[in-house]
Amino acid sequence: MARLAVIAGGGALPARIAAAHPDALFVTFDPQAGNLPDGAEVLHASFERAGALFAGLKAAGVTEVVFAGGLTRPKLNPLRFDAKTMALAPAVMAALKAGDDGLLRTVVGAFETEGFAVRGAADLVPDLTAPAGRLAGRAPAKADLADIDRAVTILTTLGPLDIGQGAVVVQGLVMGIETVQGTDAMLDFVAGTRARFRRDGGVLVKAPKPGQDLRVDMPALGPQTVTAAAEAGLNGIAFAAGRVLLLDRDEMIVRAQAAGLFLLGQEV
Amino acid sequence: MARLAVIAGGGALPARIAAAHPDALFVTFDPQAGNLPDGAEVLHASFERAGALFAGLKAAGVTEVVFAGGLTRPKLNPLRFDAKTMALAPAVMAALKAGDDGLLRTVVGAFETEGFAVRGAADLVPDLTAPAGRLAGRAPAKADLADIDRAVTILTTLGPLDIGQGAVVVQGLVMGIETVQGTDAMLDFVAGTRARFRRDGGVLVKAPKPGQDLRVDMPALGPQTVTAAAEAGLNGIAFAAGRVLLLDRDEMIVRAQAAGLFLLGQEV
Repeated sequence: MARLAVIAGGGALPARIAAAHPDALFVTFDPQAGNLPDGAEVLHASFERAGALFAGLKAAGVTEVVFAGGLTRPKLNPLRFDAKTMALAPAVMAALKAGDDGLLRTVVGAFETEGFAVRGAADLVPDLTAPAGRLAGRAPAKADLADIDRAVTILTTLGPLDIGQGAVVVQGLVMGIETVQGTDAMLDFVAGTRARFRRDGGVLVKAPKPGQDLRVDMPALGPQTVTAAAEAGLNGIAFAAGRVLLLDRDEMIVRAQAAGLFLLGQEV
Repeated sequence: MARLAVIAGGGALPARIAAAHPDALFVTFDPQAGNLPDGAEVLHASFERAGALFAGLKAAGVTEVVFAGGLTRPKLNPLRFDAKTMALAPAVMAALKAGDDGLLRTVVGAFETEGFAVRGAADLVPDLTAPAGRLAGRAPAKADLADIDRAVTILTTLGPLDIGQGAVVVQGLVMGIETVQGTDAMLDFVAGTRARFRRDGGVLVKAPKPGQDLRVDMPALGPQTVTAAAEAGLNGIAFAAGRVLLLDRDEMIVRAQAAGLFLLGQEV
């Protein structure tokens, strides 16, 4: 019998998975986590005691795990490490220097070594992604499609470097390339700096990096990003079909319609 | 006899060239330009009348031209175009869509077609660039050198896409990739968004794009960028040796020393 554990980070994703998998066990690293479903079975864990976490999962009959929502990098106290965390520490330290992808690969590898199957949230809750086609708004104009193409080229070119998953192009001008600060910070930057170029519109494109493990690190869009894109004066948002999480799709569509933005699933 | 015309944009570069070439003719597209050297011979020109510009240069005995300082994209009135501008317009319109490099190549090509040799400011005033080595500050630490390497890799990878010429890396985290808004806007972004990552230091790297025409489009650093880099909390600035303009190098060094930043010419 497969039993699922949800490694719960912030945001609404844990609750979405709980709705589809009511018997899942929820693992949280945050003693104050306020986003766990009512009545769920919860395992409180610490990065400092990986051995205790794995033992607790096995004791609960867990065979597969899903990472749901961003985990903040904790401050760790090496004096509190258990033997398992101690054994994992060198690989984690090396991975931290190699970028976020490396860290995730290391964490995923540790769960797999312990015998857990790692599932993707989008596999467990299929409507978290959307196929190619328009979800909201008018059809993109020719200039929008050209901007989408250029942004896709940028993301594809940068992909091997493990940087961002988003870019903003405005009538051919590249105005934002996502870095570690994230999509919304990039959109704020565009909003604050675009006026002098006197060009209307533009697009945000989100797509995974080549080789990115979509089970644990799928790019995500949510309602806040729709609002930020509108405030940045963009015409719309395009996302890689089936490969970008849409967190609260209904609210995204409502906001996009209200702001006159298109939302477009794109084969990338 | 070679005579030089300086196509004067904003900033201090026209005056630097004038000091080395006192008999140069100055061409300005800005009737209010306040940065032309006292006593210089000035030709007022308009993008709408390229034929008049070329004729004026030839009448003044000009054989070579140098582009000095950024030109702002003007608002043009097609009704005022002379025959030469009309003839150039289709190529310029096509180039505008292809990015800044394309536009510059078209403008340079137009001058060359008219028989003018296009010179680079750095050729005419050699100390506008600096060779490999340290200009200011302490020696970069190992972490700084790793950040420089990563930024160089990013710029090299993005080069063919005609985007920016600068990147900021902070202890392995990519925090800024220069887009059309320029280096100082990127540094402001880093200053405003880095706190939550709790990592000190970092570097700004400036380097030309592969294939960039360094005669007319060399990346530039100036005192304001040194101040902005300090305000962004960086440890230093590295620039491609011999291939980045240092506008007012003395003031750059003074500010870098005062802020504890290194300035480093780097073989890229």
